[in-house]
Amino acid sequence: MNESASKSKIISEQDVIDFARLTGDNNPIYLDEEFAKTTRFKTRIAHGIIVAGHISAIIANDLHGKGSIYLSQSLYFKAPVFLGDKIRTEISVISHEGTKYILECKWFNSTENVVLEGIAKVLKDD
Amino acid sequence: MNESASKSKIISEQDVIDFARLTGDNNPIYLDEEFAKTTRFKTRIAHGIIVAGHISAIIANDLHGKGSIYLSQSLYFKAPVFLGDKIRTEISVISHEGTKYILECKWFNSTENVVLEGIAKVLKDD
Repeated sequence: MNESASKSKIISEQDVIDFARLTGDNNPIYLDEEFAKTTRFKTRIAHGIIVAGHISAIIANDLHGKGSIYLSQSLYFKAPVFLGDKIRTEISVISHEGTKYILECKWFNSTENVVLEGIAKVLKDD
Repeated sequence: MNESASKSKIISEQDVIDFARLTGDNNPIYLDEEFAKTTRFKTRIAHGIIVAGHISAIIANDLHGKGSIYLSQSLYFKAPVFLGDKIRTEISVISHEGTKYILECKWFNSTENVVLEGIAKVLKDD
């Protein structure tokens, strides 16, 4: 398998609308620009877990393959993600023991600030 | 604030289709029933992070309110979630120091098996 991989994806308004529907989290900080203007961020932000979800495609498509089993994930939210932000997800293999891999995960915004970081443990199954 | 809260939600096929689109993770184990029949699970499963996302609505609507800031989350994936499963998310306050709260999070399927568990840290901001 590869030792590292990265991928960029823009967080769209549709992503936030869909994620609000599928989680039931309709907080106006994500959905209502007028409300969001009154918050510390001054505009809408994206649900943090949407960004975390980007890791999933990289593990399956670029690192491990279809048979990977996701064992655990830690997530440290460092900075807000705004609608329209282009987020780059970077994953590196830190170590592995047999088929169990430990991956360092970092998510950067367009200004190279880390918005999210954490460690994933994955079992390579095929 | 409340000391605990829970909420149940069915994981629908549309949830999985939407999450595949917004993360770019189109792994056939989520989307292609014919392929999924050949895997260890014998049918499609849902992306694990969808289930984690259910926590977001509970923190905002039932525990903390609109101004909560999500600091960190650990996630331990224990069992697969299948399309159509009704998942109950339970959150309890373990401790708090000032406005920083530590929350125990557990996700159960219809047969009362834990499919996911972890710890959240949240800052109550309003």
